[in-house]
Amino acid sequence: MLLYESLATQLRQQIERGTLRAGERLPSIRQLAASHGISPATAVQACLQLEREGRVQARPRSGYFVRAAAAPLPAATPTPRRRAPGVIANPALQGVFDLLARTDLVPLHLATPAPALLPGAHLAAAMSRQLRRQRTAALDYAPPQGHAALRRQIALRYAQCGTNVDADEVVITAGAMEAISLTLRTITTPGDVVVVEAPTYHGILQAVAALRLKVLEVPNRAGQGIDAAHLDALLQRTPARAAILVPNFNNPLGSLTPDHAKRAVVDSCARHGTVVIEDDIYGELAWSGQRPRPLRQFDTHANVITCGSFSKVLSPGLRVGWLLGGPWTDALVRAKYFSTVGNASLPQLALADYLAQHDLERHLRKLRRTLADNGQRLRDAIVRHWPSGTRIGEPAGGLSLWLQLPDGGSGQTLFEAALAKGIGTSPGQVYSSRGDYADHLRLTCGQPWSETLDRAMRQLGRLTAQRPR
Amino acid sequence: MLLYESLATQLRQQIERGTLRAGERLPSIRQLAASHGISPATAVQACLQLEREGRVQARPRSGYFVRAAAAPLPAATPTPRRRAPGVIANPALQGVFDLLARTDLVPLHLATPAPALLPGAHLAAAMSRQLRRQRTAALDYAPPQGHAALRRQIALRYAQCGTNVDADEVVITAGAMEAISLTLRTITTPGDVVVVEAPTYHGILQAVAALRLKVLEVPNRAGQGIDAAHLDALLQRTPARAAILVPNFNNPLGSLTPDHAKRAVVDSCARHGTVVIEDDIYGELAWSGQRPRPLRQFDTHANVITCGSFSKVLSPGLRVGWLLGGPWTDALVRAKYFSTVGNASLPQLALADYLAQHDLERHLRKLRRTLADNGQRLRDAIVRHWPSGTRIGEPAGGLSLWLQLPDGGSGQTLFEAALAKGIGTSPGQVYSSRGDYADHLRLTCGQPWSETLDRAMRQLGRLTAQRPR
Repeated sequence: MLLYESLATQLRQQIERGTLRAGERLPSIRQLAASHGISPATAVQACLQLEREGRVQARPRSGYFVRAAAAPLPAATPTPRRRAPGVIANPALQGVFDLLARTDLVPLHLATPAPALLPGAHLAAAMSRQLRRQRTAALDYAPPQGHAALRRQIALRYAQCGTNVDADEVVITAGAMEAISLTLRTITTPGDVVVVEAPTYHGILQAVAALRLKVLEVPNRAGQGIDAAHLDALLQRTPARAAILVPNFNNPLGSLTPDHAKRAVVDSCARHGTVVIEDDIYGELAWSGQRPRPLRQFDTHANVITCGSFSKVLSPGLRVGWLLGGPWTDALVRAKYFSTVGNASLPQLALADYLAQHDLERHLRKLRRTLADNGQRLRDAIVRHWPSGTRIGEPAGGLSLWLQLPDGGSGQTLFEAALAKGIGTSPGQVYSSRGDYADHLRLTCGQPWSETLDRAMRQLGRLTAQRPR
Repeated sequence: MLLYESLATQLRQQIERGTLRAGERLPSIRQLAASHGISPATAVQACLQLEREGRVQARPRSGYFVRAAAAPLPAATPTPRRRAPGVIANPALQGVFDLLARTDLVPLHLATPAPALLPGAHLAAAMSRQLRRQRTAALDYAPPQGHAALRRQIALRYAQCGTNVDADEVVITAGAMEAISLTLRTITTPGDVVVVEAPTYHGILQAVAALRLKVLEVPNRAGQGIDAAHLDALLQRTPARAAILVPNFNNPLGSLTPDHAKRAVVDSCARHGTVVIEDDIYGELAWSGQRPRPLRQFDTHANVITCGSFSKVLSPGLRVGWLLGGPWTDALVRAKYFSTVGNASLPQLALADYLAQHDLERHLRKLRRTLADNGQRLRDAIVRHWPSGTRIGEPAGGLSLWLQLPDGGSGQTLFEAALAKGIGTSPGQVYSSRGDYADHLRLTCGQPWSETLDRAMRQLGRLTAQRPR
């Protein structure tokens, strides 16, 4: 291929793929020549070729501009994707994953409160204020451990709830997901055994799989929480390096582990040398209103690393969570550095500002009531519109409603049928490391009740009644 | 211990550690009772005890407030830290790491342009604009792959520089560090061999060590760049899964690998089945002004994953970088999700806005000139004030100046002596997986030239002349 043809081909592709859009200017002849190591004359030749094809248009003294296409351009051929090692090849999971970028669905799949339920105006004001007051800090690196003002507000919130936390052991992370993932990477070695709950959040299962850890399952039961006796028997038989537990409103169950079981779980793990990684991301979302204690509060052996986040209570898009590192704090800060250097600065400064200015508890009281109300309406709708035999969990908090379909109906089939009608749900089997819960489905209650939701719930009821196999 | 004493001890600790500060209110009696599972009377008893100790003060109808301490409180006993597996136990590295949170040093250790050299006002304006225009999107989750508007701007920038990139393969990450770390986690398995440059950035060495990968070293030479023939011979003897290469302005060398060597490196890796992970974080910072080509531009086998960032050119605190995933894009997006769910939203929206509104190239022209000028002044100062025999690299771009001390002087000793004088530097040995470069030191040129810098360089010269062993 001649030099000018090669350049013309590249530019053509950029136009076809939309990298260069109608009305935009091509790089200058000088730039094209320099960046491709060709003469200006050759660059001009390429541009003339594209002009002949009708793809660009010369404007005197301004350069070449992309012309609007007369007809829709052909779709780009998809690139074949190579496989990556250490990832659970769960087709159901890919389905769930594909939903994340969609904004056109009735969002019964999103475990986040709707923006209308969060204090967006106050947070935006806090960001603007911080941009004005400390612009340099807002644009510069945050310390790897996180901004001190925010770490202190987090310790203060724990103190208000009766848990002793030192701001020095708070490490700011990109949400609870990074907190869990960093902790696993810091304390485990590939091949180690870790305990997870059954059922549990698929993100936890993926993080564990990616690190090539072996999995033991402990039941978390609807209405009862973690089975502490089962866990103790499990650890007696098989030593485990860590246990990732969600005592406060397990996702997808919404179950609350009572205090006596929490104490037993913490003691049992300490006795067997198993580090507890507590995912407390839903801890603030008790439907009853009373914030339950984290496992951390029962920990007398400095053996619990608690992970939390502002994603479910203030804003998911700020990507600010934390972990309480205890004796592992230094190692975890280093891990954070070598993973992302540190969290974005402005969201940290803005959250510290918001927490100092506003009464978080007041916002939470309202949010909890709304979620409890939404959850109750979802339950009512199921009782009214879904076939009998559908079993519903009894969540005590959080954002999820866990269902078992009647007569061995397939969660995956219902998920797909719902998707075809524009309704997002989550199939049960992604919440198990072994593909269990094929007849389960998770719905979420983060949306204010509406006519649309009511219609979607009727529709889901009809689809369930059809029981497609 | 009695119940009230236990609560009093907890509150006392929160006051001593500064979690509760002078003037702040204790949780209410009702809150204390509920969160500790004790009676209100017991909670009152605890508060009375603290009042007797002079730590809190009751205010009628308002509750208990922390009193200002009469004398400085005793320092908290440091918690013993547990060791974490898989981390290079390099004491020199811990020293470098400790500097990151310090703001009181002459910053010759920071490989970032000073805030004054970056368009802070424009970026802040873009953030405010985006908060006004799309507050909901700014506070909600971004898609795991990143916001489309920003991915397109990144593809466009590559197009302007003559490199064909599809916006669909751009994955937004928390800086280049996360891009490299995600890529390694996605394409390697523990025990795999990877090639790194000698010398290279310690963050790369740590990411590799944390994943328990084996390391092969290829020389990157001052003034010459990557030794392509050496790399080929290396790969012929030992198959490697990946090579992490920094052809454009290696950190700490500042060397530029010429195009013919880039082509040879890319071909050689493709032939030997070695995936190239290109760290192009300094690519925009050529002191000559001409942006060099990324390895990606020479890649005809879809075998290069290029990692970049806005940290060194616009703002480090936004934590926005990217990778060009090619055929691994889907797997890398999944890895990103299971690591941090996604990047913070507002920084992405603001950068896309900034890039659409402003001429990046114009800002870069100025920045490159300033860095080249600072680099030249640092070199001049060394020639003038440091002992003869000090050897200076010849950086072609980036932010680093790599020095070899005369007569086997110790970089670590100089680092420590400089620190004692309030000057931050980096000791050479952290840039090697084997502790090489003990007689080297890295300085950085991100600060505008000043009297303070001039004084610091004289002081460093004197310290070097003392040659402490």
